Amino acid sequence: MQKSAVLGIGQIKVQEHWDKSLRELAGEATLFALEDAGLNRVDGIFVSNMLSGTANKQAQLGALIADWIGLKYSESIRLEAACGSGAYAFRNAVLAIASGQIETALVIGVEKMTDSPSAEITSALATAADADWEVDMGVSFVALNALIMQRYMHEYGWQTSDFAAFSINAHANAVHNPYARFNKTITEKTYQNAPMICDPINLMDASSIGDGAAAIVLTSSERIRNQSPKICVVGSAAATDSISLQNRNDLVWLSAAEISSKAAFKQAGLSHSDIGVFEYHDAFTIMAALALEGSGFCERGEAPRLANDEEIRINGQIPVATRGGLKARGHPVGATGIYQIVEVVQQLRGVAGETQVPRNKYGMAQNIGGSGSNIITHILARE
Amino acid sequence: MQKSAVLGIGQIKVQEHWDKSLRELAGEATLFALEDAGLNRVDGIFVSNMLSGTANKQAQLGALIADWIGLKYSESIRLEAACGSGAYAFRNAVLAIASGQIETALVIGVEKMTDSPSAEITSALATAADADWEVDMGVSFVALNALIMQRYMHEYGWQTSDFAAFSINAHANAVHNPYARFNKTITEKTYQNAPMICDPINLMDASSIGDGAAAIVLTSSERIRNQSPKICVVGSAAATDSISLQNRNDLVWLSAAEISSKAAFKQAGLSHSDIGVFEYHDAFTIMAALALEGSGFCERGEAPRLANDEEIRINGQIPVATRGGLKARGHPVGATGIYQIVEVVQQLRGVAGETQVPRNKYGMAQNIGGSGSNIITHILARE
Repeated sequence: MQKSAVLGIGQIKVQEHWDKSLRELAGEATLFALEDAGLNRVDGIFVSNMLSGTANKQAQLGALIADWIGLKYSESIRLEAACGSGAYAFRNAVLAIASGQIETALVIGVEKMTDSPSAEITSALATAADADWEVDMGVSFVALNALIMQRYMHEYGWQTSDFAAFSINAHANAVHNPYARFNKTITEKTYQNAPMICDPINLMDASSIGDGAAAIVLTSSERIRNQSPKICVVGSAAATDSISLQNRNDLVWLSAAEISSKAAFKQAGLSHSDIGVFEYHDAFTIMAALALEGSGFCERGEAPRLANDEEIRINGQIPVATRGGLKARGHPVGATGIYQIVEVVQQLRGVAGETQVPRNKYGMAQNIGGSGSNIITHILARE
Repeated sequence: MQKSAVLGIGQIKVQEHWDKSLRELAGEATLFALEDAGLNRVDGIFVSNMLSGTANKQAQLGALIADWIGLKYSESIRLEAACGSGAYAFRNAVLAIASGQIETALVIGVEKMTDSPSAEITSALATAADADWEVDMGVSFVALNALIMQRYMHEYGWQTSDFAAFSINAHANAVHNPYARFNKTITEKTYQNAPMICDPINLMDASSIGDGAAAIVLTSSERIRNQSPKICVVGSAAATDSISLQNRNDLVWLSAAEISSKAAFKQAGLSHSDIGVFEYHDAFTIMAALALEGSGFCERGEAPRLANDEEIRINGQIPVATRGGLKARGHPVGATGIYQIVEVVQQLRGVAGETQVPRNKYGMAQNIGGSGSNIITHILARE
């Protein structure tokens, strides 16, 4: 089996890009990645996107983007697992390289969300929930996360204010990331004064949508065997859970995080203490907490303690959201999983500047679709 | 590299399934496939669908369907390349098995189209065209195919009546397929009297949408090495072209069919005369003609002659649409590519009944997204 190595990364700033079309966003990130890789063609393209059919009235982004970036005729497919689309596209590229049929792959995550009316985007995002059993009852996607957070607080006795530390950390790191949507810090006071969106989730618990694109060029590790150091994919695994909360075995436990992270650790032959950076999926602070717990970085119900003890900071036990996370870098849904891996690569390359983590041999990225129904975990290593 | 073998197939009748939800359609086809395979679990699931985000307000079909069929926690992703989604999902499963990371895969194509108002489905199908450069100008998806057909007739001198043979063949074969939407023959008179949809495409040139689902269980050929005969995937390739017609090098030539079929033939070490059945993508009769030409089964501009000489019939030079094709089996867009491969497997197993092809060692399936922008070709062999 061919092991994958990252040859190039590219990203654009997450923001409202009203002057650029969907394909232009994807094209910019891709050209950065190809330039970084020193390539002008690839064997296969994997595009990650959630909403283009609804928000942009455009299907088959594979062909659309291949043409736009000058790679017409290359094979190119779009993958979708709601907000977990990015890492799933990356995983399929890893498998394609492992097959030996494809030597170089381009993975592109892109989402253009801010041209559509808010109500339309809220409705489109609700397609991540169960249309028949949840959305038809009038529940929005935020409301589902609010139910989980409410239950979590009830079970473990935490207050809303205990979740502020996740967002404060994310914003503190985003200040130093030129690609982040928000380059400003927030304080506990900002959190306390934040307007309520869906009790108990307030505006500072929630990540921000945005337009964005990120891209990665992958190749077989063998192809660049003389290059050192190189960033390799040493663990890749995915798992699902039921979309509808009523079908979950445990409302406050991400089974798919547990399954996929255990599988990735096993493949990599590593343990939690090896991981120097964890780009988790903090779409809401409750998801940040559950990702840490489900992936085994702390015990059940202990994630807010980890955050409040500053163990999630750059110099802590497990640095998270080191470039701002979904909260402050922004969450262009189908692109997010690719941003996460790009950011882990930056850390392993040692180019993360002010928010460079001290232990940067191994990093983990975990992307979540729905409120835990699709979870994909990757471990990367500097070799 | 692990070669893939088909362990099981399943399908349901293409029709208006108003009494069944999207997940129920997928579930039925899947249970048939798992039963045929003699399995009750798989390592990875690949779901093919084009329109669920718009027509069914449901994203992440991977998790949705995994849960419904009792395989919660399995990894499961949705792939999309408009009407070419099916074969692309199949190809990604083939690559995953080739990687050695996944031993058994389930590929499910599903589409539920008839619950939505026609105008909404027409608009959703138009997302297969270029939103910025084509659809914004008011062109529907049928209109794009009409432009191609018009040009083809102009270049090669054929009349509309010359295209009737493609549809007559499809309907003649569908009579014997219990899963086909239309179990009735049509004649030249039916074709002549058909209402015009978009000149020169009439109702008998166009395939019919429908609700449908088909599924395939794949495993590594090695895993069932003692089973004989077995149906193996010996060629798998995909290519893109520009979505917008204005960006094509040649309006009446499917470059992506040429590239992907040549690659598949090369992998298989076979030539055209080896292929005993070709399940092509006759979304419109013009696409049937272009698929035959682009894939090298006849010279440019000669496909209508092949059809009128009855060389596409069951006992002809290259039998096509042997179970009805898109025209008469029906075209539940995201499921179509899986139906095609299921039908090739039926032929290679020798269970195609009245429409069994005489030479059934090798078969080809070719699925098209857009009006030629995503083309995926597979060659299967009985070994």
